[in-house]
Amino acid sequence: MIFTAQVKVMPLKELLDPQGKAVMGGLANLGLNGIKDVRIGKNITLQVEADSADAAAQIAEEAAKKLLANQVMEMFEVEIK
Amino acid sequence: MIFTAQVKVMPLKELLDPQGKAVMGGLANLGLNGIKDVRIGKNITLQVEADSADAAAQIAEEAAKKLLANQVMEMFEVEIK
Repeated sequence: MIFTAQVKVMPLKELLDPQGKAVMGGLANLGLNGIKDVRIGKNITLQVEADSADAAAQIAEEAAKKLLANQVMEMFEVEIK
Repeated sequence: MIFTAQVKVMPLKELLDPQGKAVMGGLANLGLNGIKDVRIGKNITLQVEADSADAAAQIAEEAAKKLLANQVMEMFEVEIK
């Protein structure tokens, strides 16, 4: 069975996010002053072939740990849909 | 009041995602053969100052349309948390 797994990878809260800071500056230049903070991460959608949702979550988590996220600088969340 | 808006930006389904294809190759090389497709987009978290959740959603949507997403190649979804 094919499951859709969504992996969100975000920079850790303790770390600066220079890309987010740059986008925040751009938004302020466009007149969007209500935006006080921007953080940018990745959103990865995987199509996983597995016997159960739990098995699919395990495969997605392994993929995140081994390749998708750098756990020194990023945290990740896996969600099966 | 400060609302947290999450903007997901993904490449349109009709378009190739070469970054996703490269990651899928990497995952296969790591022995994760159960993963049949990978698509990579952005996950952007905004802290929005607004009077209501609806107003915050409107600001986040404007930000997505004006700067965060390229609607020729990408689709976006806004969620207020």
